[in-house]
Amino acid sequence: MIGGGTGSFIGDVHRKAAAIDGMIDLVCGAFSSNAEKSKASGAALFLPEDRCYGSFEEMILKEIELPESIRMDFVSIVTPNHMHFAPAKLALEHGFHVVCDKPMTLTLEQTLEIESIVEKSGKIFALTHNYTGYPMVKQARAMVENGDLGHIRKIQVQYLQGWLSTAVEQTGQKQASWRVDPTKSGIGGALGDIGTHAENLMGYITGLKIKELAADLGRFGEGRVLDDDGNLLLRMENGAKGTMSISQIALGEENNLAIKVYGDKGSLEWEQENPNRLITHWLEEPVKVYTPNGNDLYDAALNVSRIPAGHPEGYLEAFATIYKNFATHVMAILSGETIERPDYPTVKDGVRGMQFIYAAVESDKNNAAWTTFKK
Amino acid sequence: MIGGGTGSFIGDVHRKAAAIDGMIDLVCGAFSSNAEKSKASGAALFLPEDRCYGSFEEMILKEIELPESIRMDFVSIVTPNHMHFAPAKLALEHGFHVVCDKPMTLTLEQTLEIESIVEKSGKIFALTHNYTGYPMVKQARAMVENGDLGHIRKIQVQYLQGWLSTAVEQTGQKQASWRVDPTKSGIGGALGDIGTHAENLMGYITGLKIKELAADLGRFGEGRVLDDDGNLLLRMENGAKGTMSISQIALGEENNLAIKVYGDKGSLEWEQENPNRLITHWLEEPVKVYTPNGNDLYDAALNVSRIPAGHPEGYLEAFATIYKNFATHVMAILSGETIERPDYPTVKDGVRGMQFIYAAVESDKNNAAWTTFKK
Amino acid sequence: MIGGGTGSFIGDVHRKAAAIDGMIDLVCGAFSSNAEKSKASGAALFLPEDRCYGSFEEMILKEIELPESIRMDFVSIVTPNHMHFAPAKLALEHGFHVVCDKPMTLTLEQTLEIESIVEKSGKIFALTHNYTGYPMVKQARAMVENGDLGHIRKIQVQYLQGWLSTAVEQTGQKQASWRVDPTKSGIGGALGDIGTHAENLMGYITGLKIKELAADLGRFGEGRVLDDDGNLLLRMENGAKGTMSISQIALGEENNLAIKVYGDKGSLEWEQENPNRLITHWLEEPVKVYTPNGNDLYDAALNVSRIPAGHPEGYLEAFATIYKNFATHVMAILSGETIERPDYPTVKDGVRGMQFIYAAVESDKNNAAWTTFKK
Amino acid sequence: MIGGGTGSFIGDVHRKAAAIDGMIDLVCGAFSSNAEKSKASGAALFLPEDRCYGSFEEMILKEIELPESIRMDFVSIVTPNHMHFAPAKLALEHGFHVVCDKPMTLTLEQTLEIESIVEKSGKIFALTHNYTGYPMVKQARAMVENGDLGHIRKIQVQYLQGWLSTAVEQTGQKQASWRVDPTKSGIGGALGDIGTHAENLMGYITGLKIKELAADLGRFGEGRVLDDDGNLLLRMENGAKGTMSISQIALGEENNLAIKVYGDKGSLEWEQENPNRLITHWLEEPVKVYTPNGNDLYDAALNVSRIPAGHPEGYLEAFATIYKNFATHVMAILSGETIERPDYPTVKDGVRGMQFIYAAVESDKNNAAWTTFKK
Repeated sequence: MIGGGTGSFIGDVHRKAAAIDGMIDLVCGAFSSNAEKSKASGAALFLPEDRCYGSFEEMILKEIELPESIRMDFVSIVTPNHMHFAPAKLALEHGFHVVCDKPMTLTLEQTLEIESIVEKSGKIFALTHNYTGYPMVKQARAMVENGDLGHIRKIQVQYLQGWLSTAVEQTGQKQASWRVDPTKSGIGGALGDIGTHAENLMGYITGLKIKELAADLGRFGEGRVLDDDGNLLLRMENGAKGTMSISQIALGEENNLAIKVYGDKGSLEWEQENPNRLITHWLEEPVKVYTPNGNDLYDAALNVSRIPAGHPEGYLEAFATIYKNFATHVMAILSGETIERPDYPTVKDGVRGMQFIYAAVESDKNNAAWTTFKK
Repeated sequence: MIGGGTGSFIGDVHRKAAAIDGMIDLVCGAFSSNAEKSKASGAALFLPEDRCYGSFEEMILKEIELPESIRMDFVSIVTPNHMHFAPAKLALEHGFHVVCDKPMTLTLEQTLEIESIVEKSGKIFALTHNYTGYPMVKQARAMVENGDLGHIRKIQVQYLQGWLSTAVEQTGQKQASWRVDPTKSGIGGALGDIGTHAENLMGYITGLKIKELAADLGRFGEGRVLDDDGNLLLRMENGAKGTMSISQIALGEENNLAIKVYGDKGSLEWEQENPNRLITHWLEEPVKVYTPNGNDLYDAALNVSRIPAGHPEGYLEAFATIYKNFATHVMAILSGETIERPDYPTVKDGVRGMQFIYAAVESDKNNAAWTTFKK
Repeated sequence: MIGGGTGSFIGDVHRKAAAIDGMIDLVCGAFSSNAEKSKASGAALFLPEDRCYGSFEEMILKEIELPESIRMDFVSIVTPNHMHFAPAKLALEHGFHVVCDKPMTLTLEQTLEIESIVEKSGKIFALTHNYTGYPMVKQARAMVENGDLGHIRKIQVQYLQGWLSTAVEQTGQKQASWRVDPTKSGIGGALGDIGTHAENLMGYITGLKIKELAADLGRFGEGRVLDDDGNLLLRMENGAKGTMSISQIALGEENNLAIKVYGDKGSLEWEQENPNRLITHWLEEPVKVYTPNGNDLYDAALNVSRIPAGHPEGYLEAFATIYKNFATHVMAILSGETIERPDYPTVKDGVRGMQFIYAAVESDKNNAAWTTFKK
Repeated sequence: MIGGGTGSFIGDVHRKAAAIDGMIDLVCGAFSSNAEKSKASGAALFLPEDRCYGSFEEMILKEIELPESIRMDFVSIVTPNHMHFAPAKLALEHGFHVVCDKPMTLTLEQTLEIESIVEKSGKIFALTHNYTGYPMVKQARAMVENGDLGHIRKIQVQYLQGWLSTAVEQTGQKQASWRVDPTKSGIGGALGDIGTHAENLMGYITGLKIKELAADLGRFGEGRVLDDDGNLLLRMENGAKGTMSISQIALGEENNLAIKVYGDKGSLEWEQENPNRLITHWLEEPVKVYTPNGNDLYDAALNVSRIPAGHPEGYLEAFATIYKNFATHVMAILSGETIERPDYPTVKDGVRGMQFIYAAVESDKNNAAWTTFKK
């Protein structure tokens, strides 16, 4: 693991998520660029001192020297955005698979470089768009893919938070301070932090790509240079239209990622804060509500539930499913097998996410003019 | 009553709503432009034959001849949009107050003419934006007005229906056929039918006006010339930003008018399909949910509840509150009293609604360019 | 109308409910046993002075003398429980149909006497168990009757309120003071006021009768002699088991009447505070949620919805359906027609309700011993 | 771990729950009484072969011989009920702490024997009443303990499942077949499997004990000798009254454990299927809804949330909290520290649970007579 020392939110999430299914052991880490702090974090995680490194370079270069049975199988990068590129590049170039937090890198150029390295390396790369791990998201995707909803006409996606309603970045809150800083976060604020999740979830469920978007971004927090709010119009490649609303100043919202998809035969709605429920509507039938391990589900949904119906799974389990599917792929590679359609977000999702950020920022600069994705 | 013969949806709604509070009696009607049909409708409503007229002109001209104690006190116009203007004009010019369904008229020009007639006439005019009659909408408005939410930053409003998902207008469904016909509906389809409600509700609760909007309209139903779907970006006069989404092809949606308002001290959300609940969020306090006749409400909300907490009031009661407040105003005028701040939508709301339709249609023609309201 | 003067809660409810469908006009009243007050109440309701009577005796005896086309068609009794018997008896004996609030009378003996008078009179008698008027309750009943749920095994019914959590009867609150007084309320407190509604709703939906019950009643309010809380075990005639919980000291509950019915093929749940939704579960299918005027409903539900799907109907509309079905029956009788299966609660429901109260009070006296219904 | 081989539901739950917080490593197991199967299960869990034992006796006796730094620190017993007693006894007697699934043993006598062994041994014993691990359950408990709700008057608790609606035990379903067999399950069916959870949750939140209960049990499944349904009246030691309803034939219910607690100052409601929400009601204030890591929580709730507000935690995380608190206690003991008020269910809870089962079965035999808890 790179980053994610004591006190980190997302480092802890990655560790718990990786642990749940018993397939992954944390064996080493460069938890901080300060060697002392890295060792202290490692000790708190019951790691031996000699596997706690002072930098990602040291970790990658030393681990590669260890016997295969001992050395790490892959790297998890859980640092702020501006520190994704270098360790991802180094790891891939030394033959390690990579799990990386989103958005993929600081700039689109870096993202495209990683994409090209991944392609050359033959290594696999997972981007933790964790919300696609929920069973009811898998069910939603299977329903669309199977044509149950018919032709998709309208999409509403939103990701609303309120934790930046006040200027918490000025109070020393670490999570806030790097996220509002373009040198660490990139050109997108809420766009990168949560907008990419919304874009990814929509693409995952509907299988549709954005043809063009019009973005009106807000910077409501005093002194903020990056967006902390945004409203977008979407036109999809298949002719569907939609809206995306994202915010980190939507006071009172906790982590309200939600989507509605309307086809000409049926429609569905799903909310991350109430994730064990998929509500569907039909032309002639009553409203049908699906639940994990409940009746009449597609295998895609059944396969990722760990416990019986009515026993709620949550955020960590959805995150764990990304790790599980990634680990399954790593193990398949180790044993020379192939997996036809691995189900976790890849470098392709990362590229699309960065294109999304760039298109939205460009549109906003042009007074919400329609803008397409660019390489 | 003008229009609203047997089989009409909205005529029946107006009659039931007007009856609930025991302040209004239906005394005459021109329920159809066919005299036979009008009489038949009137008979079914237990009206004497001589008060069932074959046209609105006949009704207005004959009623004005009746003694004051017998003749109607005001006119309710519940015809399709293209038949609002003429009877409203005639009624006002003959000294009758008017209740009129929305949107106000077929064109903005007609609306402005009615506005000017109302101003000259000294008569009162109510537009049935009925959704503002709900107790929790009154509470929401009072909270914003009182500053409880602080400065408003973000608004999400939607009005989603699915009943035009298929081409029901081709099956002879009367409600559908005039709504998709520009000669009867005007230049807005869903915009006029439900978008104006969304605009009005937002303005009523927040007290804010739209500075400019960008509208991307859809015409998904085969052969439709008017919009049956729309996504809008909003910029409000106070600097707030928002989205509006309207649709009549959002399959499975019944009558999903809903609004969220985010301030810098608090936020609120309300849904028409679950109207007896106002959810609010706060910087430091837990989520608070208000209910009609429940604890800690403003008088504005308490005053319009008819029954104790937990006894749900619905659409007809909200509609009835428009009639009740209008009738109270009529009675005040009859007895020479004045009412300081009558609480029902007026000709001003009608003008703003038509400006909204025109701005949205113009924006859509210009590829969703930002557009302001025009006279 | 007998009772229901200015300031009465339930009188106003009856009037509004009777008005909604335009079939019933209030033509006279004995709104108070004080002639002055009765006239004042009548005036506020726009009634002519000579139809405002000083007592129910006067009203019945004078109205019977009026020409048929003018005199009232039926009597509505909306007084406290101890004043149901005498006016109901007198009205029936003078040939008037009767609508009466619940529970039917002060004592079981009186109820049985009214039952016998009704049977002899040929007049019809409606008891306003208004909660059976909701469209989704009609749907629930039709589903059970049609065998959709299979054999019923388990029932949970509750009616929870919190308005007597404190000793409001000592503050002069009129609604509270007669309800806690056995000379006005009868031997049941919460049992009579809300328990009978719960019993009636359960019987209406399931078609099942209670074989025996065990009741543990509470008197939590200081100085209360009547029950303000009760927990009951139920054994039904078909072998099903269940619970009933009623309370008026369940602090925070508003008007939480709710029922769950479990069969061996399906189950359903309905809540009065969210009445436009019927949730059903099935052995092999996903959860299905029905809504008024939504898809796939029985005619019994479709027939009682007044407005399109998504336009919520509430308590007054459900109450109005009782009046509408009663008025339809009265009109059928007037025109010599018969109605096969009139759908409103009758004197039979009233008898069962009083038997329920008596059985529960007896069981409670015997430390919650199993007790059957007795004549 | 004892029991919980491949295909076991609860074994897997225990393993995942124990893994989440990174404090516990699975080091050995007797996963089956068949040595081959045990080794196969262990291999699938990446355990070395020499730590996969053919019986719990072998495991305990061999592990005790291992150096302290290597041998297991405690035993987890996840077998069916009839196989809790022997391994718990042996483990305690050899100095191992114990985590044991509920209900504690097959008989009350065994439970009392374990209680006495625990007391003598100085070892700690956790019973996995996992539902007390949810953050909002901790908040509920803290609110009651702090007097926020005032004097508790009324309690409703239910635990409803539908998975035994049909005779699944006759289809070879392993989970079902031992649960309906009194030689494996004990004298309680649903009572032991889920009723004890309901009793424990109620006791945990309210701090109240049952004074006496009246139980009416059902055996609806064809050929079942143990209860698969039950309705209970409760009288608590403080004078409160309540109901408990449990079922495994409540068709359509998934895992619906829910509780309502009414005091004379406030009330609360919580549902396991929607666990990240605690709804509270107050005499003078609006409804307040608490969420994990949301505003205005007690430390007891804050301390057990792993992720920010709006990121749902579920069943596994609640279960993990039991393990975490137990492991923290084990580590404190290892380092010679004491923990003032360890927060996990203990042998005391196990005794009360068995007394509950025995009292309910006895009451049911006596036609639901009031019955007290007995040693």
